[in-house]
Amino acid sequence: MLSVQQAFDQILKTVRPTTPQRCSLFEATHGVLAEDAVSDVNIPPFDKALMDGFAVRSCDVPDGTGTLQIQEVIYAGSVPSRSLEAGQTSQIMTGAPLPEGADAVIQIEHCEINESEQTVRLKTTPVEPGKNMLYRASVLEAGATVVKAGAYLRAQEIGALAETGSPRISVRMRPSVAILATGDELVPPEERPQAGQIRNSNEVMLHSQILQADARPVPLGIARDERTHLREKIREGLESDFLLLSGGVSAGELDLVPSELEAAGVKQVFHKVNLKPGKPLWFGILERETGSPCYIFGLPGNPVSSMVCFELFVRSALRQFLGDPHPMPRTLRARLTADFHSRGDRPTYQPARVEWSEGAASVTPLKSMGSADLHATVAANAVALFSTGNQLYQSGFLIDTFLW
Amino acid sequence: MLSVQQAFDQILKTVRPTTPQRCSLFEATHGVLAEDAVSDVNIPPFDKALMDGFAVRSCDVPDGTGTLQIQEVIYAGSVPSRSLEAGQTSQIMTGAPLPEGADAVIQIEHCEINESEQTVRLKTTPVEPGKNMLYRASVLEAGATVVKAGAYLRAQEIGALAETGSPRISVRMRPSVAILATGDELVPPEERPQAGQIRNSNEVMLHSQILQADARPVPLGIARDERTHLREKIREGLESDFLLLSGGVSAGELDLVPSELEAAGVKQVFHKVNLKPGKPLWFGILERETGSPCYIFGLPGNPVSSMVCFELFVRSALRQFLGDPHPMPRTLRARLTADFHSRGDRPTYQPARVEWSEGAASVTPLKSMGSADLHATVAANAVALFSTGNQLYQSGFLIDTFLW
Repeated sequence: MLSVQQAFDQILKTVRPTTPQRCSLFEATHGVLAEDAVSDVNIPPFDKALMDGFAVRSCDVPDGTGTLQIQEVIYAGSVPSRSLEAGQTSQIMTGAPLPEGADAVIQIEHCEINESEQTVRLKTTPVEPGKNMLYRASVLEAGATVVKAGAYLRAQEIGALAETGSPRISVRMRPSVAILATGDELVPPEERPQAGQIRNSNEVMLHSQILQADARPVPLGIARDERTHLREKIREGLESDFLLLSGGVSAGELDLVPSELEAAGVKQVFHKVNLKPGKPLWFGILERETGSPCYIFGLPGNPVSSMVCFELFVRSALRQFLGDPHPMPRTLRARLTADFHSRGDRPTYQPARVEWSEGAASVTPLKSMGSADLHATVAANAVALFSTGNQLYQSGFLIDTFLW
Repeated sequence: MLSVQQAFDQILKTVRPTTPQRCSLFEATHGVLAEDAVSDVNIPPFDKALMDGFAVRSCDVPDGTGTLQIQEVIYAGSVPSRSLEAGQTSQIMTGAPLPEGADAVIQIEHCEINESEQTVRLKTTPVEPGKNMLYRASVLEAGATVVKAGAYLRAQEIGALAETGSPRISVRMRPSVAILATGDELVPPEERPQAGQIRNSNEVMLHSQILQADARPVPLGIARDERTHLREKIREGLESDFLLLSGGVSAGELDLVPSELEAAGVKQVFHKVNLKPGKPLWFGILERETGSPCYIFGLPGNPVSSMVCFELFVRSALRQFLGDPHPMPRTLRARLTADFHSRGDRPTYQPARVEWSEGAASVTPLKSMGSADLHATVAANAVALFSTGNQLYQSGFLIDTFLW
């Protein structure tokens, strides 16, 4: 049986970053940039006023006082028509370009205008070059890298790309992820389960997890344990970038699923991983004629196992697919709030509550009845990892957690 | 001028939680539940095996050894036909219901079946009642609350609601948020700005922020500084739940925007807040005949100011709209990695990088050229808050940060 690390290694070796697509910035949020983006402009493009007031030559008014001759008024969006000579000034608005010769702006509040003589008397603190202005290209120079390949595109990257001349970009975008629940004991959530039946909660839960991972869910409903029906559904699912099968991979279950996957040309990469919950995890790949494979996860039917396997393994595969240079799950170390006794023959991912206070993270493992206990996960915002064996983790001990 | 706290107070007093809608669990992710949801079933619905093996009466095999008579095989999804008397056992699969009388399951690995005599010899450690099984209703009892009103619906809530008979629920859903950029100096990101022009980066950036806030962006493009055109665009924007105006609210700008808003019946709640960046923020409300108001934010045109005002104020308004009982921005306290000298006549929200290591959060304020410097925010994953005044914050000092 593979260790968790071996399973990650296999997944990252198997999943290949998808072909980038060109898209507009309106479509790019949550995608991963595929090529460095460089600026086609200087930011700011000109020496720029940061205040309403008067543009001056700082050498004319080093101590902040003096009377200067007004040349013109410069608005944002306009262009100065006159440069400043000794003793001259131009009134200027926030965001407007400074006239040639000017290297500082005096705030309007410190200026007294004499309309009839077209002069202004300044009375402020000493004036250094650069006061209340931004020099051309001081934020960013034309040709500089704005966003690097491999970056997730958040609002600030999108804004910076818009500003610097990259309205269409090369991005690896959200994959489509099909969901297929299997098992004759499943009934849709609308129905009341009869003796021996359970509601199909995994389909909507995986649908939600896929949305939370910024991918595109394709729910396919329940496949009956009947060969023709299952084959048709699997064929449909293999058209997506990923296919998640819920159930049908545990030892005691009917083995229709593995044999139908094999018949469809899917190659198994691994089956079973040494973790709790989630041991029955299955992973495979279908090479398609299009050149882009479909990746298939067989997830355990127990809801908590399914959830843990998705958050650990499927999400890493999704990140790898997007070309994220750091596809592994991010851990956060936090201090135990109380002693915790872990007993298990496998590394255990326990629903837990992580809290922050005064700059420090603490973690409280939650009481859970096991892999069927979705209600412990409702109270949780993380899983805490405990190693194999019978072990007492003392209060204050630092352990790895995974936020979800 | 309002303080930041006063601005929050005004926003939370003005924005009313929207009317809940009934929706399916496939639509509910990121919504906020409007009513407590209770379970219509016990979880599990019956005493349930957690392992493949043999169901036993623990009193028959207290020390874990003995030979028992096999009654039947019970599969998941089926119903036991026979109860257990002294000396009897039934083979059972994971997930299957225990027969009446049984209170423990012995793992198949510790069982030796004698096919001809229909007996099984057990050899394991002492057996306590409850071993390898879950008692009926031990996870959750019928009638118990599954998810409380006010909870954001994540994957685990969605799964738990599906399992417990709430396939359609009453939810406050993602609002529509219109975006209207104003200013004759703006050109679309596809165009190369001429002298005095700048690219409209705020529209796509706000579009992305709205997506990240799980709301529905409605981009309306650029409104020219011309009364008829602006009026038409504002009218269109006021049909959404929120209207964000980008630019047109600073002192030096043309005052078409406030007068057109007033003409449309919008009531100003406040203008200007004492923070940096973001001082020109404007907020108002339009009561509509439908009974559901439109809330209007006039955001500053400088990109960093716009971003900060959205993250602090607009997002709190969105949370209030959804009925989140905790609509205020969540702060994370983190330790400064180096001395930081803050100078400002207003509380300052500085782009910063928060990192975690060994359970502790640290924060590094980033060099920024001010409210036009979107590139500092690209390197950032947070803003750090510094109070008014000329002050040295020493390395190791705990300060408030806001992740974004």
